[in-house]
Amino acid sequence: MNEVLMQIKERKSVRVYEDREITAEVKGEIIKAAIEAPTAGNMMLYSIIDVTDHELKERLAVECDNQPFIAKAPLVLIFLADYQRWYDGFVGEECNPRTPGEGDILLACADAIIAAQNTVVAAESLGIGSCYIGDIIENCETIRELLDLPDYVLPAAMVVYGYPTEAQKNRKKPVRFDEKYIVYENKYLRLTKEEHTEMHQERNRKAGSIERNVSEDTKALCNRKYMSDFSLEMNRSAGEYLKKFKRE
Amino acid sequence: MNEVLMQIKERKSVRVYEDREITAEVKGEIIKAAIEAPTAGNMMLYSIIDVTDHELKERLAVECDNQPFIAKAPLVLIFLADYQRWYDGFVGEECNPRTPGEGDILLACADAIIAAQNTVVAAESLGIGSCYIGDIIENCETIRELLDLPDYVLPAAMVVYGYPTEAQKNRKKPVRFDEKYIVYENKYLRLTKEEHTEMHQERNRKAGSIERNVSEDTKALCNRKYMSDFSLEMNRSAGEYLKKFKRE
Repeated sequence: MNEVLMQIKERKSVRVYEDREITAEVKGEIIKAAIEAPTAGNMMLYSIIDVTDHELKERLAVECDNQPFIAKAPLVLIFLADYQRWYDGFVGEECNPRTPGEGDILLACADAIIAAQNTVVAAESLGIGSCYIGDIIENCETIRELLDLPDYVLPAAMVVYGYPTEAQKNRKKPVRFDEKYIVYENKYLRLTKEEHTEMHQERNRKAGSIERNVSEDTKALCNRKYMSDFSLEMNRSAGEYLKKFKRE
Repeated sequence: MNEVLMQIKERKSVRVYEDREITAEVKGEIIKAAIEAPTAGNMMLYSIIDVTDHELKERLAVECDNQPFIAKAPLVLIFLADYQRWYDGFVGEECNPRTPGEGDILLACADAIIAAQNTVVAAESLGIGSCYIGDIIENCETIRELLDLPDYVLPAAMVVYGYPTEAQKNRKKPVRFDEKYIVYENKYLRLTKEEHTEMHQERNRKAGSIERNVSEDTKALCNRKYMSDFSLEMNRSAGEYLKKFKRE
């Protein structure tokens, strides 16, 4: 296994950081990894907001499901799926363009996340931990106002970065489901109830927590996360963003 | 610049492959990089379809805007944003769940693309080139039928992989726009017409093609791509997928 594969395998989310700045030079390397990422038709259908303002970080920490560690991260980047730039360009050149649609914004989301993941890999190679904040999709109206987002832009992800504390370095990476439940050959396969249970049990076994009750855990997760207020808010908010891309 | 950063910087899309198989072991390493990718709440909101059937590859090459090189790739993976697996699990445990919404599927798209980009980085480290095929979003009805996709699944990206030919290795990587047009501090900034023109001119200069006419190029791209039939089809198709996630 080469060094790149090893780093990918070992990488886990980091939410507690040393009190250590990320220098401009190092930040430049991380951003460069985004800029060089694959992008549909070389169009760069994304923008990055570099959150340097401390008050803004504090606000984002609140708006993104109250996660104070966000405000403590030395580097906070928001990856926007962005069709506004090209639409404005087309309008400026009097191309008489249609407005961006749902396929356009999905493609732009892909571009934004590809760029984000390149920064995560790049940061890891520089000894810098990171954590995705999916909650940036919530609270559409507030986030639009805070970041001056126009209609054809949608926050695909926020990523926060920092040097991991020793405790974070030693934290065990959460065990993933076995790939036989995730990778299918030629056709999608829906798992049976038994396979669902096995999938969880196998993960529990690998994680050394075989005593766990899969049925209770699934119910608890459904109530705590999937049916939670923040999850309902995320769905409402995403719907608001996507409305702009709907065909009349 | 370390080895990881170097590989990210140099990586470009590869569309012509040597007649050389990707061994099961090497494929395993590439898929492992997906499985180990960051994922929201350790839920793995994605599935991967490993396309091994040659006829299916041929069909996908046609359905994805007629790109025959797809069928010639020794490895073809489709990354599905997948909330079906968890929804089925919740139903199986009688959690009485709501159906997945637009926020859920955006989060799942992020998971799918994060996993995809990890495979691209992993492949690169193994000397294997790759190319994203965004066109997998098109032709919803056909793709659903070909891959047996249930309602709460959406193809976020297809990636094809293979050993690059010498000509591909020597091909120049397309120059990206300068980061000052892509990265903003604290707030989104809409570019003026002049800034749009400068953005293109600067890229043309770096690419050694300063003679190009930005206005004509923008109009041509708008007509050839943005207003094209395949782009309209992508938007229609994406709308069909997203319908399933809309709140009543």
